[in-house]
Amino acid sequence: MIYLDNAATSWPKPDCVISAMTQCLKEYCANPGRGSHGLSSAAGLAVSRAREKVAEFFNIKDPLRLCFTKNATEALNTAIYGVLKPHDHVIATGMEHNSVLRPLKTLERDRKISLTLLKGNRFGEIDLGELAQSFRPETRLVVSTLSSNVNGIMMPIAEIGEMARSRGALFLVDASQGAGSVLIDVESMNIDLLAFPGHKGLMGPQGTGGLYVGPDVDIKPLMQGGTGSNSELIYQPEYLPDLIESGTLNTPGIVGLASAIDFIRETGIDNIGKHRHRLVERLHEGISRLEGITVYSRPEKGKNSGIVAFNFDWADSNEIAYILDKKYNIAVRAGLHCAPAAHATLGTLRRGAVRISPGWFNTMDEIEYVIKTIEEISRQKNLQFV
Amino acid sequence: MIYLDNAATSWPKPDCVISAMTQCLKEYCANPGRGSHGLSSAAGLAVSRAREKVAEFFNIKDPLRLCFTKNATEALNTAIYGVLKPHDHVIATGMEHNSVLRPLKTLERDRKISLTLLKGNRFGEIDLGELAQSFRPETRLVVSTLSSNVNGIMMPIAEIGEMARSRGALFLVDASQGAGSVLIDVESMNIDLLAFPGHKGLMGPQGTGGLYVGPDVDIKPLMQGGTGSNSELIYQPEYLPDLIESGTLNTPGIVGLASAIDFIRETGIDNIGKHRHRLVERLHEGISRLEGITVYSRPEKGKNSGIVAFNFDWADSNEIAYILDKKYNIAVRAGLHCAPAAHATLGTLRRGAVRISPGWFNTMDEIEYVIKTIEEISRQKNLQFV
Repeated sequence: MIYLDNAATSWPKPDCVISAMTQCLKEYCANPGRGSHGLSSAAGLAVSRAREKVAEFFNIKDPLRLCFTKNATEALNTAIYGVLKPHDHVIATGMEHNSVLRPLKTLERDRKISLTLLKGNRFGEIDLGELAQSFRPETRLVVSTLSSNVNGIMMPIAEIGEMARSRGALFLVDASQGAGSVLIDVESMNIDLLAFPGHKGLMGPQGTGGLYVGPDVDIKPLMQGGTGSNSELIYQPEYLPDLIESGTLNTPGIVGLASAIDFIRETGIDNIGKHRHRLVERLHEGISRLEGITVYSRPEKGKNSGIVAFNFDWADSNEIAYILDKKYNIAVRAGLHCAPAAHATLGTLRRGAVRISPGWFNTMDEIEYVIKTIEEISRQKNLQFV
Repeated sequence: MIYLDNAATSWPKPDCVISAMTQCLKEYCANPGRGSHGLSSAAGLAVSRAREKVAEFFNIKDPLRLCFTKNATEALNTAIYGVLKPHDHVIATGMEHNSVLRPLKTLERDRKISLTLLKGNRFGEIDLGELAQSFRPETRLVVSTLSSNVNGIMMPIAEIGEMARSRGALFLVDASQGAGSVLIDVESMNIDLLAFPGHKGLMGPQGTGGLYVGPDVDIKPLMQGGTGSNSELIYQPEYLPDLIESGTLNTPGIVGLASAIDFIRETGIDNIGKHRHRLVERLHEGISRLEGITVYSRPEKGKNSGIVAFNFDWADSNEIAYILDKKYNIAVRAGLHCAPAAHATLGTLRRGAVRISPGWFNTMDEIEYVIKTIEEISRQKNLQFV
């Protein structure tokens, strides 16, 4: 099978990730921070080291401001519900995932906030002028995806961050697509809140993610509970990461994520980014010239985090994904990808799009096979073979 | 090392749990419910089977009412914040963990709910008469731990459930201590909401847990996000488990939990409960006769889920745990165990308690060694050897 669904979750994982997790589970998976015995300390130390590694990876100066979550969705909800107050105004791009859109739309529906969604161009790229004009005195938060999970389009994060900071608004970045192959620097990009999953481009396991909370951010937790600290308090401790991290952490998952970060550092984030871009560029070139095909992604590096989204004019995206899987053993995703706003922007709300997302472990030979396959499907316009 | 901190997290895990997780990570860890290709379907199927297994284990008739969470804390917060409305009254036992106490106390502080904490006897056992008298017309929720994480005391769950149902209140059970060795039947026990961790008595990995939401419960989610379903909706789908499960699930963790449930079923929950009780009973007998020791746990089966909590009159609990670890290689936990209310009940708020919590993999020989060790410490009253 050729796995090209890395935007959903990266697969396979580096061997070191799995062996680090197995070793943790077998040898020292006690409860981190909940005891002083050797095994608990070993688990606690592993979590601390992972926290430092991930923090360094995003240029987060104080590792204690990095909170582990179960996935990016929890991180995004923690940020959104944690910083917004009644009557706040929020600006978000038109390419946000449901993990941003649904909390914001729910708050808007309940008349707690007002919301401006930026219209993008046909690729979903935002207009910085439109952003500038969208600020109001009560704008507390700007939310942007690092890149779209539908077509891979990259947002001008540093520029948005600068604008948000100069207007006194907080800046939340959803790094679900791009973290691991695109350099993220919370300092130089003026990011106040960074949400990321561990299991996509970072190549860690599912069940991991995190939220960076910048020093200027006043945040309330989404939940309260045992923190292994200040047990005598009947309220949540007010310092990070304990404020946000309630209950037992996913120690083996976090250990796996740390090992994945090591793998990326050793491989080189630049090399990973370049490799993914070469595959995307070739795929884009190979299929965009076919008849009856519409490609929704831009091929340029800096404009695409690693996705080619397309449709045949004569077919539903799900049909194409089905054929690719069943007949050619190529795993891609079709449909709406939990991002209806993005599809509204791209004009694909009705039938979704076929999304091909290569990862570090894909090869150029695989991409050539995929191009040939899509050419073949293009020729056999009628779907008798299904 | 003798690991006796199973109330924090069970260790070691059954071999089958680790091998199931490794196999998942290596062979089919795609994104469950986020695609139609073979690998995604395999992951989705594994999650569905796990859901059915866990549901059956607790006699949950509709597996779709079982939602996976990252830990028990998320499940408890989802239940508490999801069902309570302004002006509601809540009754909880005096032995609740901070994962129950902190959300409830926060809601009470913010004047959203009123709260009655039941006083217990010196072991924390509640008085059903006091419970009966605590109901008010606006009592929406009764919360009880299945058993205390401090001293193992069991609560009369079925009786509390019956009383809550007859008064029209919902019943939330925190099964963090006991699930896996104590039989839980949501039907016969009148449980409306059951929260549990996967990594304690259930012997699954950290990063797993769940919340059962009964058919009479109207619940709001703690977060919203991608569900892989109804992607076109800008609001959260209203059916379970999607309402509660936002973002990518911890597939390898859930697969590990399912394997752990298999292990428990094959071993027999009764055998596990009996084994743990034999160890607790012997330990209780062995140390309670020592001079200058106070034991806070009851030894009887049905009164103890698997914990012996004690103090030497002349020492801080942390000192004893430290000596047990460093000199005798015995891992236990001391301090407040994230449950200050329970310590207030037991009269141990100042110095906490030493908690010994045997698990399925502990042996009687280990317990005999622990008893001898505690005898030795008892004789060497002065702590020169530290």
